[in-house]
Amino acid sequence: VNDQLISKANHFAIEKINSVKPFLVNVGKISKLVPTYPKNLILTSGAPLPWEEYEGGQREAILGAILFEGLAKEKKEAESKIIDKEILIAPCHDYGFIGSVTGVYSYSMPIFEIRNNVNGRSAYCSLFEGLIKEKITYGLYTVKTAENLEFLNETVVPVLQKSIQHTSGIDLTEIIRKAINMGDELHSRNSAASLLFTRSIYRSLLEQYPSNPNGVMETLDYLGNDYVFLRLGMAYCKLLADEIANIEHCTLVTAMSFSCKEFSIRVSGSGNRWFRSQLPKGQVKLFEGYSESDVAWMGGESCITETMGLGGFCQATALTLQDYSGGTPETMIENNTKMYEITIAEHPIFKIPYFRFKGTPLGIDIRKVVSRRITPVINMGVAHKDGGQIGAGVVNAPMECFIEAFNAFNKASK
Amino acid sequence: VNDQLISKANHFAIEKINSVKPFLVNVGKISKLVPTYPKNLILTSGAPLPWEEYEGGQREAILGAILFEGLAKEKKEAESKIIDKEILIAPCHDYGFIGSVTGVYSYSMPIFEIRNNVNGRSAYCSLFEGLIKEKITYGLYTVKTAENLEFLNETVVPVLQKSIQHTSGIDLTEIIRKAINMGDELHSRNSAASLLFTRSIYRSLLEQYPSNPNGVMETLDYLGNDYVFLRLGMAYCKLLADEIANIEHCTLVTAMSFSCKEFSIRVSGSGNRWFRSQLPKGQVKLFEGYSESDVAWMGGESCITETMGLGGFCQATALTLQDYSGGTPETMIENNTKMYEITIAEHPIFKIPYFRFKGTPLGIDIRKVVSRRITPVINMGVAHKDGGQIGAGVVNAPMECFIEAFNAFNKASK
Repeated sequence: VNDQLISKANHFAIEKINSVKPFLVNVGKISKLVPTYPKNLILTSGAPLPWEEYEGGQREAILGAILFEGLAKEKKEAESKIIDKEILIAPCHDYGFIGSVTGVYSYSMPIFEIRNNVNGRSAYCSLFEGLIKEKITYGLYTVKTAENLEFLNETVVPVLQKSIQHTSGIDLTEIIRKAINMGDELHSRNSAASLLFTRSIYRSLLEQYPSNPNGVMETLDYLGNDYVFLRLGMAYCKLLADEIANIEHCTLVTAMSFSCKEFSIRVSGSGNRWFRSQLPKGQVKLFEGYSESDVAWMGGESCITETMGLGGFCQATALTLQDYSGGTPETMIENNTKMYEITIAEHPIFKIPYFRFKGTPLGIDIRKVVSRRITPVINMGVAHKDGGQIGAGVVNAPMECFIEAFNAFNKASK
Repeated sequence: VNDQLISKANHFAIEKINSVKPFLVNVGKISKLVPTYPKNLILTSGAPLPWEEYEGGQREAILGAILFEGLAKEKKEAESKIIDKEILIAPCHDYGFIGSVTGVYSYSMPIFEIRNNVNGRSAYCSLFEGLIKEKITYGLYTVKTAENLEFLNETVVPVLQKSIQHTSGIDLTEIIRKAINMGDELHSRNSAASLLFTRSIYRSLLEQYPSNPNGVMETLDYLGNDYVFLRLGMAYCKLLADEIANIEHCTLVTAMSFSCKEFSIRVSGSGNRWFRSQLPKGQVKLFEGYSESDVAWMGGESCITETMGLGGFCQATALTLQDYSGGTPETMIENNTKMYEITIAEHPIFKIPYFRFKGTPLGIDIRKVVSRRITPVINMGVAHKDGGQIGAGVVNAPMECFIEAFNAFNKASK
């Protein structure tokens, strides 16, 4: 192992991350924004599993997406088409997508496109499904789920698209910077960012109103939610992470991802290889009326925010989350402080007021994770076994996958 | 002195404060909203001074208001009309008004009206003057100042008025509660509150747009400022403070106010009497290019926010202010902690995340101020001697007026 080579590669990676200029440039159906996306492809969260391993909400969501596309008429048919490879299941991460909870994507679903203005590369994320309970994101698929996706496609997307086209792209860096100063950590809390995003397109909403009053009003109502920005932040971070995939000798983490069965990571120098662990246990705070036995894992890649120094990595700015995900200011500050021990840089723009405007901890080095015995802390939503969100919490990533990645790295560099 | 009587009166006062339901109900010229307001009355910040004592920006602002009303053609004429009592100068606090910096009000100026839905009592504050440098608020009066006030009256006020009338009053408590969770302390930082306020009238702005596109766009631009909410917060607090004026035996502070010459307070049980001190010295952070010798006092009553437990009294929630007004997270938390030592209650709705959602310190008791030798901490803007804002900072109220009030109280209760 040549420490100097690694260090050089890692700092090159940080420079690459900091050189990205992410702008929200489009919104629309996958079929329109990603013309190469095959009709028979379903993406989902996490490192890939054999079909029989997908269970619970994640399995339901995959089958739901197939029904939504009309690729099968009922679940049984969908399952046999998966087994026959007529329908393909693949990880979001391989296609520049990032998955929220089940992270299911299919051809006709609406997505945001975030583009790096420097090199034209894009990352994609789904839209928040709004206030309905039956979210495919949280493992439910009913007639209402489908109607709601159609509503997004037909009502919300055209209005947002005009708003985005009205600009030369919306600068998400500035929104995130301000939001961190307003108590968002951009994973479990996006209240300020959602407001700032809405503010940024409000002029265009006014201009569209005379010709489309209902569409604009419904879009405004849709945007009146604290979670609207989360997906934009996820795609933002995915764009940064993809920029440093596959750098030789680089020991920085490029993906952390949950499926219903595993937690997995990717490391830059190891390319597309997944290192897998069993699911961890978190400290969760459940909404009233639910108990631990209701909780289920159904995947999730929103921890791309932590991978790029947001979420749990800047929770000292979001002490209001005590309310939502539990913990105390002291534990949140302590968790946040620890993340500086496993990262190699501080973000030059995103700064934490409580730490005297120190930049957020950026660049998770698997060598540090292993030697300090500290794993990344992740803020996250909690799903019900029958679907829907029932709480939020904080989880420490499991150590095994980092050790495995570290060993693989050492072996490869010998 | 009967401690039990005092304690009973003070807790009765806290109950009264907490019973107020402040709603933004109107905006418009003073002449329309306060029909009893005399044409020849100019209000200004601070305990009243003899005319010859008003100097610098505060004097300029008073004369400017007289010219704005056409009560005199030039300053000399204005001055002799003041001396002849043809024009009256009085403290804002006596009329349910609250003054920002110079705090100058006259008949044709635009104001917000905040009403207590429980008993119909109102409090009033001016509108933020926007981005022009020549603000009468900061002691400047030119043709541009007058044109800008006309712009507010003719363009912004009609749009905002329709927006407010569209509702049954805008619930400011909810906006302030959320803003505190988003890093505002509602005096030097109002970024979240300004966004939330703007958000609360978006629907109405959309509806007005087709018939008044320019007016709505200009109003939207005007609202795109982090300081827009400050005046609403001030009037909110003034409404609470007036609710507890003149309660027998009550030792809680009901007003803290600066003129160009003095800092003064009022205490509930002492009614309208002012207790006066010399101006204090603050720790200030000046905008680039300015020095201490540029700083001037020209009045200010925005510390009504501190009087009611906001501003400096919840600065632990607004650590981002390090940037703007200086200090460190540690000093801000320490300052905030001390304010619990001189107050008798915690706000039931406004809660500070850093203190595990402890309510903001509410009800400044002059007995505690005197016995603990701790005076209120006040966040504030800093004015240039020739007008305009040149910085911000933190100031400790001077002790003398509290001691004087305490002694007067003891004498009266013997």
